Amino acid sequence: MATQGQVITCKAAVAWEPNKPLVIEEVQVAPPQAGEVRVKILFTALCHTDAYTWGGKDPEGLFPCILGHEAAGIVESVGEGVSEVQPGDHVIPCYQAECRECKFCKSGKTNLCGKVRVATGVGVMLNDRQSRFSIKGKPIYHFMGTSTFSQYTVVHDVSVAKIDPAAPLEKVCLLGCGVPTGKLLHFILRSLGAVWNTAKVEAGSTVAIFGLGTVGLAVAEGAKTAGASRIIGIDIDVKKFDLAKNFGVTEFINPKDHEQPIQQVIVDLTDGGVDYSFECIGNVSVMRAALECCHKGWGTSVIVGVAASGQEISTRPFQLVTGRVWKGTAFGGFKSRSQVPGLVDKYMKKEIKIDEYISHNLTLNDINKAFDLMHDGASLRVVLNMHV
Amino acid sequence: MATQGQVITCKAAVAWEPNKPLVIEEVQVAPPQAGEVRVKILFTALCHTDAYTWGGKDPEGLFPCILGHEAAGIVESVGEGVSEVQPGDHVIPCYQAECRECKFCKSGKTNLCGKVRVATGVGVMLNDRQSRFSIKGKPIYHFMGTSTFSQYTVVHDVSVAKIDPAAPLEKVCLLGCGVPTGKLLHFILRSLGAVWNTAKVEAGSTVAIFGLGTVGLAVAEGAKTAGASRIIGIDIDVKKFDLAKNFGVTEFINPKDHEQPIQQVIVDLTDGGVDYSFECIGNVSVMRAALECCHKGWGTSVIVGVAASGQEISTRPFQLVTGRVWKGTAFGGFKSRSQVPGLVDKYMKKEIKIDEYISHNLTLNDINKAFDLMHDGASLRVVLNMHV
Repeated sequence: MATQGQVITCKAAVAWEPNKPLVIEEVQVAPPQAGEVRVKILFTALCHTDAYTWGGKDPEGLFPCILGHEAAGIVESVGEGVSEVQPGDHVIPCYQAECRECKFCKSGKTNLCGKVRVATGVGVMLNDRQSRFSIKGKPIYHFMGTSTFSQYTVVHDVSVAKIDPAAPLEKVCLLGCGVPTGKLLHFILRSLGAVWNTAKVEAGSTVAIFGLGTVGLAVAEGAKTAGASRIIGIDIDVKKFDLAKNFGVTEFINPKDHEQPIQQVIVDLTDGGVDYSFECIGNVSVMRAALECCHKGWGTSVIVGVAASGQEISTRPFQLVTGRVWKGTAFGGFKSRSQVPGLVDKYMKKEIKIDEYISHNLTLNDINKAFDLMHDGASLRVVLNMHV
Repeated sequence: MATQGQVITCKAAVAWEPNKPLVIEEVQVAPPQAGEVRVKILFTALCHTDAYTWGGKDPEGLFPCILGHEAAGIVESVGEGVSEVQPGDHVIPCYQAECRECKFCKSGKTNLCGKVRVATGVGVMLNDRQSRFSIKGKPIYHFMGTSTFSQYTVVHDVSVAKIDPAAPLEKVCLLGCGVPTGKLLHFILRSLGAVWNTAKVEAGSTVAIFGLGTVGLAVAEGAKTAGASRIIGIDIDVKKFDLAKNFGVTEFINPKDHEQPIQQVIVDLTDGGVDYSFECIGNVSVMRAALECCHKGWGTSVIVGVAASGQEISTRPFQLVTGRVWKGTAFGGFKSRSQVPGLVDKYMKKEIKIDEYISHNLTLNDINKAFDLMHDGASLRVVLNMHV
């Protein structure tokens, strides 16, 4: 391509400081170095993760930066030594890298590749510990190794999944990025993975889902696909119940309707507790309730929501000694480069929902409005067209 | 037998009230009713569990009672409908019943049979909710469904494991009884089960064991048998290190030698953390350290020790979201009637140690002295000959 090896100047939404509106700026995007890929981002979604860092709540947040981590695009150029993707490939940038060489990747037990963390954790690229973004020579930090609120971004080659070019990028962008740091909220991958990979819900199981936002809905869909016989949705906003039925929730509990602790209500309702529970809110008290509503002897509770920094979970050790298991999930346990393409295929075969999570389609220029919509509980996912 | 159907008067150590010395009394032991088995106890060991209830720390403790739950004996007579054991069978009474009919037994996921809990939890037998023990007409409560500090005891048929009659009862009594209530400490079954059934330690794994008492030693032995490559023992009593080597511990850490938190010391020593950790003390702070010294992505921590009533464990949810798993174990996950006989066979084939845990052999009359020895940290297990 004509731009290969050149600095590209394009539009990006820059977070200059916490809590101030993002500013659409002309940014310079340097060419990819060894092991890097420059991607033209076509569509990006917004996530609470971005809002969390933007809001200054992330102790590791660095400013100025370019946020964004749920996106899809096309490879513009690649750096030295990059062999698995080439210009023109359709890709999803993935925060969770997969190098296939580190002890995490080789363990067979986790998807938490450690290769580029040391760089992505501090907003730079691994090769030279510098940013590829700048405005008139002033560096702008990367975010989560993805920075998809830019028309062009540079990512590590271990962090990019090549997908079916027939897949609609304005939809499958939602399959992007999960978060291993535990401080952030995510979405479909993480939710489905929590059900299929972390909990391994079996057919006939009883499932409780705390929080019926998009994460909770995706968990419900995953549980339904796994054949769960009862899927109990717990939320204090009864408006969510109608929508949740479409995602597989079979019964609803509003904790406000009960005087007893919610875990006791669920234990009574399920003859001793559920087989699996999922916390999809990020509230440490709810995490405790989610564990304690599990059945003695085998109940497994998975933390999917992400608590505020510094908060702690607690319970009596008795809960674990009597056979309950407490787990969490990062990026849903999916290996990014290996498994994200397969999830795109599942979507193409209509085995998983994506369209239903998208409530608004806007453009990059509307990004601040898009965040306002997201903070309004009624909105699900907002997708931005980056080049209109 | 001549005693069948008759009340047997024999000697037993009675705990009249918390913290007062046990008194050797002549007790009346009623014949077994439907579904019950009367056992002549030949040998019993003492355990911290017994001391815990005796010391008044157990909120469910009932007095007067007959303590004891690690024992072996011979069936004297059986009640109506008992088919799986008969007079003369060698048996180990097991606190954890196995009825093979309740939803716990049928789940395939737990050993926590629920059938007789409602009775054993309040010191009586299921059939008529009465005790079989009395002194001059005054009922004496059962304890843990076993009450092995008596020359004869009555147990539920679902709580008795028939073993190889060639096995030395003065040794295999240590394979008795584990505890599902979570409030008590136990022993070999629980420890080996924690390693083999709950954690499923694989060959080549790195293991950390917090606390090198008998429970920790048994965990070490289990880890060694499972092929763990590094077994790190953590204890503040360096005197325990020499003995622990015989049970498989390969390296030692005394937390007092380090300024950093012990979890950090272990993480540094093991390139990111251990694959499996076991808390064998019952200290909630140590339980946290045990979780946090596990490797990101897959490390599994198993709570084996039992905390004091009312205490709570806590950690940052980040620890779980990044892939660590927090579990506990009750009775080591072994099914009592089905699997205890096989453990006896393993002992007979010298695949598991028992003799090495026995430090003293005394008689029933010496039971108070035996408790004194147990409270002395130098002692391992004390076994009482009940009929000398």
